[in-house]
Amino acid sequence: MTASKDTDQWVTPEQLEVWRLFIRAQSRVMRRLEADLQTKHDLPLAWYDVLVRLLEADDRRLRMSELAERVMLSPSGLTRLVDRMVEEGLLERAQAERDGRGFYAVLTDAGYERLREASGTHLRGVHDYVVGRFDDHELSTLAELLRRIEP
Amino acid sequence: MTASKDTDQWVTPEQLEVWRLFIRAQSRVMRRLEADLQTKHDLPLAWYDVLVRLLEADDRRLRMSELAERVMLSPSGLTRLVDRMVEEGLLERAQAERDGRGFYAVLTDAGYERLREASGTHLRGVHDYVVGRFDDHELSTLAELLRRIEP
Repeated sequence: MTASKDTDQWVTPEQLEVWRLFIRAQSRVMRRLEADLQTKHDLPLAWYDVLVRLLEADDRRLRMSELAERVMLSPSGLTRLVDRMVEEGLLERAQAERDGRGFYAVLTDAGYERLREASGTHLRGVHDYVVGRFDDHELSTLAELLRRIEP
Repeated sequence: MTASKDTDQWVTPEQLEVWRLFIRAQSRVMRRLEADLQTKHDLPLAWYDVLVRLLEADDRRLRMSELAERVMLSPSGLTRLVDRMVEEGLLERAQAERDGRGFYAVLTDAGYERLREASGTHLRGVHDYVVGRFDDHELSTLAELLRRIEP
């Protein structure tokens, strides 16, 4: 809608250009990271993300609702994803004790091992495709600008 | 994997922080844009993206392979999405003339109308959540940094 009245009203051509750079940069980086994980470790990027979140959590477990929030998936989308990861032995489900409402997703030893194998590939990509392209000053400028986008 | 040897090898804690800001900013913005389009226009963000790409194309049509590339979907993912949009009358399929290989997706008048209704909402979000938060100098700095992430 580059030339419409609505565009003129809300965003300038310069702003639209930056917006497009923003989404294009993100898409390209994610596609490259995903391709590396798939090719070298047969691991989707969304699975990697789930494994990392559980590794960082207390007792390597999170309530499904909390995990969905952290990996930014819908509850139903996360349920399907976790089901498949449980089938492959990377996760276990555990019932939430006391209140009995809901389940935890728990990282298994096999899940930890799979993450350990893949993390070098992933972090190398994060370096090569993104953060390694900036010096310290640029990195802190970028951080400052990105923080402006927080809610 | 914040404290692992692999992290230390490839990315510093400062770099990891910027990386996380980058993906978090992007996820949040996309979720807000998606929520606005869904709530006000019952239109998924991916549909909006397809409609915009076709509006910008010559004769408001693109080969499926070209469209998949532009919206960054897999061919099978795009086929499912286009099927649903055809059912709703927003797109038509047209056979590629000469060589007979493959199809075009074509924007219909109804698709154009739907896009026209939704574009104000979307562009207002792009302004409010992202580009409107920067002055001209910051905007050009951000553009310069984002261009560094191109392949």
